[in-house]
Amino acid sequence: MNFAITHRDLETSARTGRLRLPHGDIETPVFMPVGTQASVKSLDSEDLHAIGAGIILGNTYHLYLRPGTEVFESFGGIHRFMHWDGAVLTDSGGFQIFSLASLNKVTEDGVLFRSSLDGSRHLFTPEKVIDIQRAIGADIIMCLDECTEHPASFDRACASQSLTQRWARRCKQHWELGDTSRQSLFAIVQGSVYESLRRESARTAAALDFPGYAIGGVSVGESKTEMEQAVAWSTAELPDDKPRYLMGVGAPEDMLTAIGYGVDMFDCVMPTRNARHGHLFTHEGRINIKNAPYARDQGPVDVKCDCPVCRVYSRAYLHHLFRARELLALRLNTLHNLFFMIQLTSQARQAIHGGAYGAFRKAFLQTYAQRMEA
Amino acid sequence: MNFAITHRDLETSARTGRLRLPHGDIETPVFMPVGTQASVKSLDSEDLHAIGAGIILGNTYHLYLRPGTEVFESFGGIHRFMHWDGAVLTDSGGFQIFSLASLNKVTEDGVLFRSSLDGSRHLFTPEKVIDIQRAIGADIIMCLDECTEHPASFDRACASQSLTQRWARRCKQHWELGDTSRQSLFAIVQGSVYESLRRESARTAAALDFPGYAIGGVSVGESKTEMEQAVAWSTAELPDDKPRYLMGVGAPEDMLTAIGYGVDMFDCVMPTRNARHGHLFTHEGRINIKNAPYARDQGPVDVKCDCPVCRVYSRAYLHHLFRARELLALRLNTLHNLFFMIQLTSQARQAIHGGAYGAFRKAFLQTYAQRMEA
Repeated sequence: MNFAITHRDLETSARTGRLRLPHGDIETPVFMPVGTQASVKSLDSEDLHAIGAGIILGNTYHLYLRPGTEVFESFGGIHRFMHWDGAVLTDSGGFQIFSLASLNKVTEDGVLFRSSLDGSRHLFTPEKVIDIQRAIGADIIMCLDECTEHPASFDRACASQSLTQRWARRCKQHWELGDTSRQSLFAIVQGSVYESLRRESARTAAALDFPGYAIGGVSVGESKTEMEQAVAWSTAELPDDKPRYLMGVGAPEDMLTAIGYGVDMFDCVMPTRNARHGHLFTHEGRINIKNAPYARDQGPVDVKCDCPVCRVYSRAYLHHLFRARELLALRLNTLHNLFFMIQLTSQARQAIHGGAYGAFRKAFLQTYAQRMEA
Repeated sequence: MNFAITHRDLETSARTGRLRLPHGDIETPVFMPVGTQASVKSLDSEDLHAIGAGIILGNTYHLYLRPGTEVFESFGGIHRFMHWDGAVLTDSGGFQIFSLASLNKVTEDGVLFRSSLDGSRHLFTPEKVIDIQRAIGADIIMCLDECTEHPASFDRACASQSLTQRWARRCKQHWELGDTSRQSLFAIVQGSVYESLRRESARTAAALDFPGYAIGGVSVGESKTEMEQAVAWSTAELPDDKPRYLMGVGAPEDMLTAIGYGVDMFDCVMPTRNARHGHLFTHEGRINIKNAPYARDQGPVDVKCDCPVCRVYSRAYLHHLFRARELLALRLNTLHNLFFMIQLTSQARQAIHGGAYGAFRKAFLQTYAQRMEA
């Protein structure tokens, strides 16, 4: 992996970069569609190419439980398994263990949990998570972390982020026993809403010299101000020349805020989940396609959008598909929302190239704030 | 509309033809994917082109209730509404009224029913069904018929088919008041399992000189032998030079049987419905992709298939998607099954061109009968 910063904004900490991965070069800031179970919900590989996705997410917890590492080994990795020649990042599964699995028991060694599929017992250690991700074969892999719950006391958040960084050290040591050129390992910053902990966590991770860094423990129920602070404190302590990935963010407005602090990579289920509820992003805000006014609206979802859906399908047809519970509604909505996020990062990159990121962000938010249909 | 027979088989009554419609030329025998609500479940227009679909079905009952004729009128018809430049045939909705709607009351005038969506009351008369289909704008439209239930007594079946033919006459008179070049009207043969009634129904319809004829009241619970007889008796009385459409059929084996009797057009929800249950057609029979042996099977669904799915995706991946309840499973399975049916009609046409349809059918069925996974 190679990461090079290509431009810096004049007023904010926003920057553009090029992330060179085994499966392609990625321009940053980048939005990565979520393909938890080796599938970005409702889309195939051609769809992903059509909306300009260069890197997608997979999830270690889910893929370990199903289809299991042996399937990935027999296919030589997730790329061939799902017929995707772009890049992949696998999350470590820490977040999913704490949110989905039952009977989690965290020790210094790792985390013991019961499968959300069949109740079977499993132990994830930092080393095991690296082994699993090696089998899955993503371009970027993540350290096992404890995603600190919100709210958490200072003492609890301190102990939690400290454990995450001890696990990060073990992950790195284990990762270095294998071929480090094929997969790049990112550490994860925790520390909840506490400045000293966020800074300490970021500094500890930075001292271990990882190829990249993620900011975790956000989008877990904290306020937008708290999220912004967590990003600001974390990025302030992370090495400038390494990629920074804000996990589970975001909404368009949150993504633009974080880009201003120098975050390079984003993922979020919101565009795909919203799509399944009929919520579609437009430059004039979020609309709900199932609302009555769209029943005869012959225009595209977003007149400013050049996605495969807006090019040929009308709001009226999407409204009909959604009301009629047609499967196609979910795919078309997903294509549009993901394209919107990917296009937004592209527009952000252009603004950074022009040295006017702040003005771009302000202008976008002004029109985007016009609507928020329930 | 223009229909020309291009080849005839030497031993059977199978024939190939070319159906010239406002939205394209269709080679027959043809399989028409079902897009009840102006959407072939899970597929978009590009998908339909990719699998070689030239004509799809819509349903008058469903489209009248939702989105309603006014939407079609504002779009200038279903083609623009769903962004589909191929041909469309709309079924009259007779079958759906009897199977889905409640409180049907059939009189000489028409059928009074309650909407399956909201309980509202509606009257379909032969004339109204033509008006609705004119608004929808399909290339081929159908007469209102009473789909005789199975089993039905001789007297009941006689009265029912007789009503269907009186309605056909009214449909034709009403259709002729408008532009008959834009949409072609097909009559429907009923008569249940009774030879005299099937023949009478077909002769009565034929005497009215329709652009084409459908055989209805099959696939309603009768045996395969009864279906074959109904097809044989009906086709024997229909004019040779007009297209014949067997409604709601079918399974690969049933379609091949009917082609042998000179049927030209088919539709069936089976390929799409099977897809959603994991049942996939192959030349070696029907498999269920969720079965355990496919978990690590790196081969395509069908080695003889050149569909967009078999070209790049493995059985193992489709198995995983289906088990993981991923939406993509439904689309990929649907693409494969519809391609299989469309390809089967293409192979049948080639065999007819070669004058050896019977041998082709026998050879296909021999290998196809090998598997029928539950």
